[in-house]
Amino acid sequence: MIWVYFAIFLAACFAAGSTGGLFPPGAWYKRLNKPSWTPPNWLFPVAWTTLYICMATAGARAAISPDNGLAMALWSLQIALNGLWTPVFFGLRNMRLGLIVLVGLWVSVAATMVALWMVDWLAGALFIPYLVWVSVAGALNLSVLRLNPDAAAAPSES
Amino acid sequence: MIWVYFAIFLAACFAAGSTGGLFPPGAWYKRLNKPSWTPPNWLFPVAWTTLYICMATAGARAAISPDNGLAMALWSLQIALNGLWTPVFFGLRNMRLGLIVLVGLWVSVAATMVALWMVDWLAGALFIPYLVWVSVAGALNLSVLRLNPDAAAAPSES
Repeated sequence: MIWVYFAIFLAACFAAGSTGGLFPPGAWYKRLNKPSWTPPNWLFPVAWTTLYICMATAGARAAISPDNGLAMALWSLQIALNGLWTPVFFGLRNMRLGLIVLVGLWVSVAATMVALWMVDWLAGALFIPYLVWVSVAGALNLSVLRLNPDAAAAPSES
Repeated sequence: MIWVYFAIFLAACFAAGSTGGLFPPGAWYKRLNKPSWTPPNWLFPVAWTTLYICMATAGARAAISPDNGLAMALWSLQIALNGLWTPVFFGLRNMRLGLIVLVGLWVSVAATMVALWMVDWLAGALFIPYLVWVSVAGALNLSVLRLNPDAAAAPSES
């Protein structure tokens, strides 16, 4: 049964992650000033695919454990926020609101990690890379916002 | 503790639902041919707010129950798909892909309803209005797609 849970949580991850393909960075993002430490574009889908497998494994391990209510509720919250960032940042090109979504995502991921850890330490540990990546994404969003003050809330024209 | 779970599930609902405010229908949707039975615009936020309260109550009741793994995994999947429809339909103005997302959402909501019912009958019953509303939304999406063949995948210009 854990494989069924894993498949469902993975489907939830890819539903949220599909926004990455639907709202691609495009010419607007390419033109923005970016910090020197910006990860290369190819790394993003590789990192997210790896993180989705970790997140789905963590969700499935918690799903088969007792007293999992808090971890399960928070897992739902973080995936809803996860799917929101890309449409806000790349769809609306609203970097300020993107940063607010990322702060909310970071808090929800950190809370999910702690709640998972209380149920099953390995499930909690599987959320560590995710929290690190969201921290990097938040620093990148903040840096791009600062380096491009005039494009902070540009209208949606390419 | 059930109130904490309720608040977290409700926050997940509003994270998904915030796409409704971020990607409003606008002039493009107003110009489309719509069936005579299209619900008035004001009904959508009223219906969704009511549904979110039902969905969060259902999630919280399942979260405090034993053997909730399948219901909790499916609750996560349906909220991830729920937040995807609006950016696809109103953001990308892709009615075909919107319909595909809605079919996936309908299946996931029906599956969540059954899984919730097996854990707690009231939690399952609280998903009935949601399934009805997603059925109406699916019929509306299909109808608008058929009535506007030329606007089926219009580019994102207002």
